[in-house]
Amino acid sequence: MQNLVELIAAKRDGRELSAEQIKLFIDAFVVGDLADYQMTAFLMAAFLRGMSDAETVALTEAMLNSGQVLDLSDVPGIKVDKHSTGGVGDKVSIALVPIVAACGVPVPMVSGRGLGHTGGTLDKLEAIPGFDVNLDTATFARIIREVGGCMIGQTAEVAPADKRIYALRDVTATVESVPLIVASILSKKLAEGIDALVLDVKVGKGAFMKDLEQARTLASALVRVGTRAGKRVVAVLTRMDAPLGRTIGNALETREAIDVLFDRAPADLTECTHALCAEMLMLGGRADDMQKARSLVREVVANGRAADVMERMIEAQGGNPAVVRDPGIMASAPHVAPVLAPRSGWIQGIDALEMGLSAITLGAGRTRADQQVDPAVGIVLDVTLGDKIEKNMPLAHIHARTADDADKAMNRILQAFRIDDSAEPLKPLVIERIES
Amino acid sequence: MQNLVELIAAKRDGRELSAEQIKLFIDAFVVGDLADYQMTAFLMAAFLRGMSDAETVALTEAMLNSGQVLDLSDVPGIKVDKHSTGGVGDKVSIALVPIVAACGVPVPMVSGRGLGHTGGTLDKLEAIPGFDVNLDTATFARIIREVGGCMIGQTAEVAPADKRIYALRDVTATVESVPLIVASILSKKLAEGIDALVLDVKVGKGAFMKDLEQARTLASALVRVGTRAGKRVVAVLTRMDAPLGRTIGNALETREAIDVLFDRAPADLTECTHALCAEMLMLGGRADDMQKARSLVREVVANGRAADVMERMIEAQGGNPAVVRDPGIMASAPHVAPVLAPRSGWIQGIDALEMGLSAITLGAGRTRADQQVDPAVGIVLDVTLGDKIEKNMPLAHIHARTADDADKAMNRILQAFRIDDSAEPLKPLVIERIES
Repeated sequence: MQNLVELIAAKRDGRELSAEQIKLFIDAFVVGDLADYQMTAFLMAAFLRGMSDAETVALTEAMLNSGQVLDLSDVPGIKVDKHSTGGVGDKVSIALVPIVAACGVPVPMVSGRGLGHTGGTLDKLEAIPGFDVNLDTATFARIIREVGGCMIGQTAEVAPADKRIYALRDVTATVESVPLIVASILSKKLAEGIDALVLDVKVGKGAFMKDLEQARTLASALVRVGTRAGKRVVAVLTRMDAPLGRTIGNALETREAIDVLFDRAPADLTECTHALCAEMLMLGGRADDMQKARSLVREVVANGRAADVMERMIEAQGGNPAVVRDPGIMASAPHVAPVLAPRSGWIQGIDALEMGLSAITLGAGRTRADQQVDPAVGIVLDVTLGDKIEKNMPLAHIHARTADDADKAMNRILQAFRIDDSAEPLKPLVIERIES
Repeated sequence: MQNLVELIAAKRDGRELSAEQIKLFIDAFVVGDLADYQMTAFLMAAFLRGMSDAETVALTEAMLNSGQVLDLSDVPGIKVDKHSTGGVGDKVSIALVPIVAACGVPVPMVSGRGLGHTGGTLDKLEAIPGFDVNLDTATFARIIREVGGCMIGQTAEVAPADKRIYALRDVTATVESVPLIVASILSKKLAEGIDALVLDVKVGKGAFMKDLEQARTLASALVRVGTRAGKRVVAVLTRMDAPLGRTIGNALETREAIDVLFDRAPADLTECTHALCAEMLMLGGRADDMQKARSLVREVVANGRAADVMERMIEAQGGNPAVVRDPGIMASAPHVAPVLAPRSGWIQGIDALEMGLSAITLGAGRTRADQQVDPAVGIVLDVTLGDKIEKNMPLAHIHARTADDADKAMNRILQAFRIDDSAEPLKPLVIERIES
């Protein structure tokens, strides 16, 4: 015990802990020899004093080894996953997995649920009738082997130390710490048995990281630490001021993701998905340069192979594969109400955070982890950044459970649009790319 | 709840909290709305970011008001107490209370028990047969009124927030923080219903504060914050490299404190006791300057009034007053073994920390709060700093429960003496004095 208090004191005084000390500390926490109130004192010290890359690697590995580590060694090929720091309208994973799998790179994807203004891939997938995200490890490995990709939720056995630590950080003002974020993300991802990882670090009003400098710091720490932990890691910084694509809400977003597979999705969503897929293909050894990788992506979309993989993955996971050709079989909301433009002008801002929060009030998201989501409800944007609009044109349609719900969300959604008298040029979606 | 997390975040970011915010935070902790793991994150943030005097006053008052505050308004006079930050052989309070009371200044003293290498006044008092330190508030007030002073332990109702916070600090490496120490000391002392306070801040190897700069910082913070909280406060910095006096152990120390009342105690102990008494007399309005105050102290010792008050206080608290004239009625240890000088030379160091730890191994102290102490055992020094000694002269005598206990402690006690070939001049016991 005294030993553990000395480790807290060392971090408090800004000293670097050894990998053995960090492992001792986390192991003690897992078995109950270190109390929650000791962990949070340590977390605050780590928040204020920082942690070196070596310490962050050790923390990542200690949390990773606190639970089950998937062994996908019997799945041939370089296993590559993608992780996004989360944004509004971010449905990229749903099309990305079948595209990358169709190109021959196996994708073992473990996703999360929505919390707060950002949605979660699992909630979106569950809008597909029958789709099961709770598979055991053997089934997960088998589907990856047979179909090329599989999408599940985190099991209780994966990185339990991270789960407990994250819950404590959430109520002790120790969330926004780069080394703690890095260890949390990587411990879960490395537990999936992957060889390489592409990170989509979102920047902007609708993202966890509001400014570019913060996001760059996080992205480069993720790449450095992931690389030191023995994985090939690339991070891409992408803009998240406006929602990605034109839909927010679970079934609406899954439908839009399917549109990517048929090359009929909005340009920003297509660009984001293709860019991340291309990074994964390079890490997976399928392409030597971005141009080659992008053309492979376009090829499996054009020839329908990506859509085929999507159907097979849905079927393998118990879902109805007909959804790929007929997304209308997913739940739809009984009340659809337009949001009309109060004036003419150019759309110069769509506040992603406000849109995300509005979607929660409609029932599409959660403010607490134990809440249910309504797959049908959400928001569909009729305009995008840079569009010229006339007064009384619809800016969006609200998909609500009741007319009253739609009314309540109306004003907030309207306020999320910034309409100016002139148009600024659009900024590119991908800001920069960081590799080790 | 969110509000409380924001207060942790504010302290984390180095912002100053208002008195209302600190009160809200402590009140929430007391009623269970703020968890231990949230408090410790706050404590670490406060440790690393510091707290302003205004924040420390607010924290002191919030902790003070978390429990019972004694009302001694029906005891006439300016009530003055003394608090020591703790040292080895520090039995000052036992003679100080009757001396100051004999001079007409009421002393409501609430003391603690020993923990770690420093002893506690309550353990020493309990070496007096029958002496009861657990009195209710009404009895405490009555004895102060009738005798002039009373010495009790802290009740569960006094500053319960401090008790819980201190227990958390102890296991989260957040003890050595000046504002947290100040609030902890003052919240307990201010709950006693005092008007003024003398602080004995010990400096040196056997003290909590090892160096002068630290001690000066703590002392001046105690004086500033105590003054802002509406009390007259003076701090005296005193040296604690060697044990104070020549005894360590409960009955042995009580006997030596009684010696002060008869002016036959070692010079350092007499000097420390008189200096602190004189400060209390000035705060209590009995003397305008140090010289006058010191002569009052000498007077009540010389005319026996201090010893009389001691007898009456012991009797009022259920103890056997005969102990004052015959300290031999206290328990004594069955085995007394000399520690012989391994060489000739001058005593240039007596390591107080090592002596305190040796006394614990003999059974005189505790390493855990739930341990019992043996009143009889301890160490009696035969020499003091600056003494010239010859080889094989006794340096000390070990008072042990068994011969085996004495043998085990022998080497450590011997090592605590530094014997040199020449003598350095002695440094004065009182280093400096800090008032507002």
